[in-house]
Amino acid sequence: MSLSGQWRPSRSDLAPATPISPEERAERAVRVFDFVPGGLDALVLFDAQYVQYYTGFIFSATERPIGLIITRGGERTLFVPRLEVEHAEQTSVADVVLSYPEYPGERHPILLLAEHLRGLGVRRVGVDHDGYPVIAGYQPFPLSKELAVEFVSPQIDLQLALKSEQELALIRESIYWGDVAHELLQRYTRVGLTETEVVGRACREATERMKEARGGYYRQENAWISGALAIYRGQIGPNSALPHALTNDARFEPGFTLVTGAGADVFGYLSELERTMFIGEPSAQQRHYFQHMLNLQEVAFEAIRPGEPSSAVDVAVRAYYESEGLWEHWRHHVGHSLGQRIHESPFLDIGDHTPMQPGMVFSIEPGLYVPGLGGFRHSDTVLVTETGVEIMTYYPRQLEDLIIPVDA
Amino acid sequence: MSLSGQWRPSRSDLAPATPISPEERAERAVRVFDFVPGGLDALVLFDAQYVQYYTGFIFSATERPIGLIITRGGERTLFVPRLEVEHAEQTSVADVVLSYPEYPGERHPILLLAEHLRGLGVRRVGVDHDGYPVIAGYQPFPLSKELAVEFVSPQIDLQLALKSEQELALIRESIYWGDVAHELLQRYTRVGLTETEVVGRACREATERMKEARGGYYRQENAWISGALAIYRGQIGPNSALPHALTNDARFEPGFTLVTGAGADVFGYLSELERTMFIGEPSAQQRHYFQHMLNLQEVAFEAIRPGEPSSAVDVAVRAYYESEGLWEHWRHHVGHSLGQRIHESPFLDIGDHTPMQPGMVFSIEPGLYVPGLGGFRHSDTVLVTETGVEIMTYYPRQLEDLIIPVDA
Repeated sequence: MSLSGQWRPSRSDLAPATPISPEERAERAVRVFDFVPGGLDALVLFDAQYVQYYTGFIFSATERPIGLIITRGGERTLFVPRLEVEHAEQTSVADVVLSYPEYPGERHPILLLAEHLRGLGVRRVGVDHDGYPVIAGYQPFPLSKELAVEFVSPQIDLQLALKSEQELALIRESIYWGDVAHELLQRYTRVGLTETEVVGRACREATERMKEARGGYYRQENAWISGALAIYRGQIGPNSALPHALTNDARFEPGFTLVTGAGADVFGYLSELERTMFIGEPSAQQRHYFQHMLNLQEVAFEAIRPGEPSSAVDVAVRAYYESEGLWEHWRHHVGHSLGQRIHESPFLDIGDHTPMQPGMVFSIEPGLYVPGLGGFRHSDTVLVTETGVEIMTYYPRQLEDLIIPVDA
Repeated sequence: MSLSGQWRPSRSDLAPATPISPEERAERAVRVFDFVPGGLDALVLFDAQYVQYYTGFIFSATERPIGLIITRGGERTLFVPRLEVEHAEQTSVADVVLSYPEYPGERHPILLLAEHLRGLGVRRVGVDHDGYPVIAGYQPFPLSKELAVEFVSPQIDLQLALKSEQELALIRESIYWGDVAHELLQRYTRVGLTETEVVGRACREATERMKEARGGYYRQENAWISGALAIYRGQIGPNSALPHALTNDARFEPGFTLVTGAGADVFGYLSELERTMFIGEPSAQQRHYFQHMLNLQEVAFEAIRPGEPSSAVDVAVRAYYESEGLWEHWRHHVGHSLGQRIHESPFLDIGDHTPMQPGMVFSIEPGLYVPGLGGFRHSDTVLVTETGVEIMTYYPRQLEDLIIPVDA
């Protein structure tokens, strides 16, 4: 299942992606009640990602509670501090904007929220959090002190996981620009340069190209990715053995194993592309782990089947670690859903038994980590189809395409 | 109390700031029990900022729970997924790193955490959250199902609010570099250019200077600020009337009111500097609101007195809104604490009665917002002293210093 040298789209192959329409967001707010348990009069969601999904409102989460009330029938009320009223009115598609003066203020905002809900005749609410989560000096106040609450984030996550055609078009365009950024990252990476220089140049150029293709306008709508981006996050040389290393501005040296990450924010949607690369001709050891990593990814691709539990993919991949004696290099499960969020559920994890369904989008990224040598991980974004899997990312996966020459 | 033309430090005036020492972090973990209620056997903290404060561990918060256990006596155990073990061991000063295999995994990590705590003989724990907060597809599991819990974030926030000499040195250096970045932002802002170009140039140059001054090395240790930064966050022209606008790449035009933000990440600590600026000669209306905004800030500076409740500052400032008939332009309280976090408690808010104490650092930023015209807000970082207040930021505050010429 080699992708090397495969077809790559040109800009004109892509249907131009457009933002999620107000109608689609409104329909989500109606349909969410098909996902959550019966008997709930309303939902109250505090997670910034849920608020954005149903209303398009994007904000800085601070100590001032912000939440979204959705009543049966799909009416959406944004609950915001006074300072966010105009911002919410001008940039969201919520039906109502309801405000409280300030936090902490004279009365706790959660009391005002509960009063409003009781005024609507609401008795039982589905919540993602029991009150607003602790952020930046906020002092928790459980909503359950005022109303009967039930946790519904698993069910809401299932709604988020099933992507519409419009969402898939945005993810495809994100993949296109992530690919462009990654190609620049690979081209600019050279011995003697630093992470910051190379990443900065690739991201600036890729973002500029994306902006031009859109007629000159870009506004960040995704919480994790700004523009088109390709990065190393510090996974450079021996540090690439840390799966979640953070940027430390390393300088590139011959012999290094590199792990990348790329994607783009397209009207709030993202994608995931990661590649393991080498500076100079890889050693026998580097080739050895690289090949096992490719094999692990192939095992995962083959294991994706609609109707099977998500855990089946992790089970299949774990069997390969087991049979090849690779456990000491295992660090994490196979992958996660993604879309508006960088990580979403369901997870391709031995403990997640959610059935895979057509329209779900996953990262496939089993890795091998060898202290002192490096990390070995590709990540591809895939779509579950009616019959199996479509690999949406198309950046070359083979070793020969991923070597940075030493004396370029 | 004009600051215009006042002394500004040169690099050589600043004691070179050094990172928080392992000893200081260890002492924090011992002393936290002086702040929280008695009868707690241990603390379990999930907020990434608390984890960093006590252990120096900086990580990407995902669906995989990460937490910090502090037992009486100050022993710190980081609870992390397998994939973060080496990262935690190499970059934190925790005493112990304890790991679980993966999330969701075969058993919920919170069950494993509770088992570990019971094994230590812990019966009653102080927590910031009742279990790990919902992030990116994580499904909540209350720790209170397993152990008696008590919320302690207000008390812990008080410990964070009382800055040590070392912390103040870091904040002072952050102010220095935020000032440098702001000067570049003001210099590069010109009619016809866009927010992205100007902000990008100012931030890159200021960060490069900071990096050079430190011998060429910089690694991001703050969750909000990378390098030295001066930005507009979209508060440009009429959009400056939205206190928490987000970047939208506006183009600068004559007559615009601008609201800035500047600071720098110095070994994880930040500061806050904001200025209202004008493009071209301000109108009578712009001058009018600017002067009231300056007056509001002066009222706040005067109201800071150790021993008085934080709310007293908001009360004094609100009296000015009242007497001058400015309520329709009010949007938020006077300010917040800051340090490692961008917003911390206590707040200078009518509802926060925490006594102000020497060593507390606040932003002072009462604002006026006039739809269609713009926002008017300076923010200065101040220190509560034994006798009153020290204004730590020194960027010019007067109107004549904050005009961008139209035909430069």
